[in-house]
Amino acid sequence: MTQADAPVPISPLPVSYEDIRAAAERLVGIAHRTPVRHARSFDAAAGMAVWLKCEQFQRGGAFKFRGAYNKIATLSPEQRMRGVIAFSSGNHAQAVALVAGIFGVPAVICMPTDAPAVKVAATRGYGAEIVPYDRRTQDREALARGLAEARGLTLVPPYNDAAIIAGQGTATLELLEDMPDLDVIAAPVGGGGLIAGAAIAAHAHRPGMRVIGVETEAANHAALSLQRGERVSIPAPDTIADGIRTAQLGTLTWPVLQREVEAVVLVSEEEVKAAMCFLLLRLKLVVEPTGAVAAAAALAGKLRRYGGRAGVILSGGNVAPDVLRDVLLAAE
Amino acid sequence: MTQADAPVPISPLPVSYEDIRAAAERLVGIAHRTPVRHARSFDAAAGMAVWLKCEQFQRGGAFKFRGAYNKIATLSPEQRMRGVIAFSSGNHAQAVALVAGIFGVPAVICMPTDAPAVKVAATRGYGAEIVPYDRRTQDREALARGLAEARGLTLVPPYNDAAIIAGQGTATLELLEDMPDLDVIAAPVGGGGLIAGAAIAAHAHRPGMRVIGVETEAANHAALSLQRGERVSIPAPDTIADGIRTAQLGTLTWPVLQREVEAVVLVSEEEVKAAMCFLLLRLKLVVEPTGAVAAAAALAGKLRRYGGRAGVILSGGNVAPDVLRDVLLAAE
Repeated sequence: MTQADAPVPISPLPVSYEDIRAAAERLVGIAHRTPVRHARSFDAAAGMAVWLKCEQFQRGGAFKFRGAYNKIATLSPEQRMRGVIAFSSGNHAQAVALVAGIFGVPAVICMPTDAPAVKVAATRGYGAEIVPYDRRTQDREALARGLAEARGLTLVPPYNDAAIIAGQGTATLELLEDMPDLDVIAAPVGGGGLIAGAAIAAHAHRPGMRVIGVETEAANHAALSLQRGERVSIPAPDTIADGIRTAQLGTLTWPVLQREVEAVVLVSEEEVKAAMCFLLLRLKLVVEPTGAVAAAAALAGKLRRYGGRAGVILSGGNVAPDVLRDVLLAAE
Repeated sequence: MTQADAPVPISPLPVSYEDIRAAAERLVGIAHRTPVRHARSFDAAAGMAVWLKCEQFQRGGAFKFRGAYNKIATLSPEQRMRGVIAFSSGNHAQAVALVAGIFGVPAVICMPTDAPAVKVAATRGYGAEIVPYDRRTQDREALARGLAEARGLTLVPPYNDAAIIAGQGTATLELLEDMPDLDVIAAPVGGGGLIAGAAIAAHAHRPGMRVIGVETEAANHAALSLQRGERVSIPAPDTIADGIRTAQLGTLTWPVLQREVEAVVLVSEEEVKAAMCFLLLRLKLVVEPTGAVAAAAALAGKLRRYGGRAGVILSGGNVAPDVLRDVLLAAE
């Protein structure tokens, strides 16, 4: 049997490199191909060469558009006609609403009654129906599943879904097309969709590439999970990085992390704020706290041990003005 | 005589299109080719299609690098050996210091004793010698000319210089290479170096292109000059846009404005702050107040009468954290 005839080994992972490539093809002309920034001042501060994948410039202001689009694009016409539902107060909600609008698909978003008015308005502005819930008394997942069943809606989960993971992997695919010769890829970890997609893309590109997740010290469930060898759940973490206030990894993302992610490093709240300030004032880039988490690891010298050339995903830029003001206070 | 043999008319302007093209060639691989951003949300707010030339991502954080590099690159080897001098508390000072460092040329920068410590540190960090002066009692221009003569230094003026104007014109040259089909180019006006270069580049590209300068209401010397048909000087203006706190146009830039700039439109301080917030929170772009002035004109609907497709120069992003905080306060 010649090499060309050899069977392609079947991946035991929930998502293959081909799934990510297929997602990337779906996104052509729809998602932005976000820029990769490199700055001498960042390298000097990090003590290594760093390329920043700028997902704050993605549609909807975060990488979440990629997964949401890939998910809704791969529903059946019948599912799309009936509509989709999601629960989130953050970037995932806006991404699902935005993508549903592009497809002309009805979208229901369950948002907490205390969600920032600006986020509710933005989500409604994309054409979604908002269903408010009380986060103290109502289980949002049960609410969404109930609505999904009653109305025949398809749930678009935030991370624990193969199409979502494949979509998020396209950010790393693009980064490696632009900068093929990296030693390390670093990305924030919440539910694990972004880092799982990153790891699969990175290891298809080069099996020896180091893939590093980053969490804040308070939101350290993935670091604990890798340490203990089992999926650990923590109480709702208190961290400025609102995009990773997740209790645990998903059942699909955890096995990918366990097999494909070399380490999860932790950054302090202060390191996140300092990274936001550095990106704002030196690189002129607006990132939300979660968007700065992996950059914070680089600036704190926590990626250096993994190689000399890192690709860092700035995951989003949707930050409230009062949070930006608080962060800037430290820089005065 | 065939058309090919026809003599090229000699331009009476201080700078020709060829000068700008030569400057652009000098900048290849040295200056960043800054990105041009386009966003649906900006277009919707402006009521027209707008492309934003992002000079906040230029080296040194502003377009000033272009002119400073072109100036120092075209000095004689002897002049470069003796060194350069500039007076400025802002982006020009940092640009001259940065470029001098690239060429290994000694640089002296006259800065006011009350300049922000962070700007003094940044300028010194590029390797320049800082000469402080008291802005209440000392004439900075006389000080700089005295030092220049005593030490054989070449003065790098902030705008009233052909090599500086040609360098600044490369921003518009690049913008029109990326987006050839624009109706309007808009840029802030301080001493007039940026808009003069923009006008010469734009009219070489297409003679009918409308070139619009933008000032704040308080810093309206160029608008007054066009109105009165003579170069008007105003008292040092009080405006948030510190990059255009200029009293008048230069002797070289004024004739270019008079002949090549269709209008100078004015924006209020509030319109500048609102534009900064829009760029920060919606487009995730950090610009300094002066950098937002032309975008403010677009968002306030003041460019619509000139056409449907505008190129707007975001001139820089060097903003102090306390100014950013003040601007964000309005958005909460």
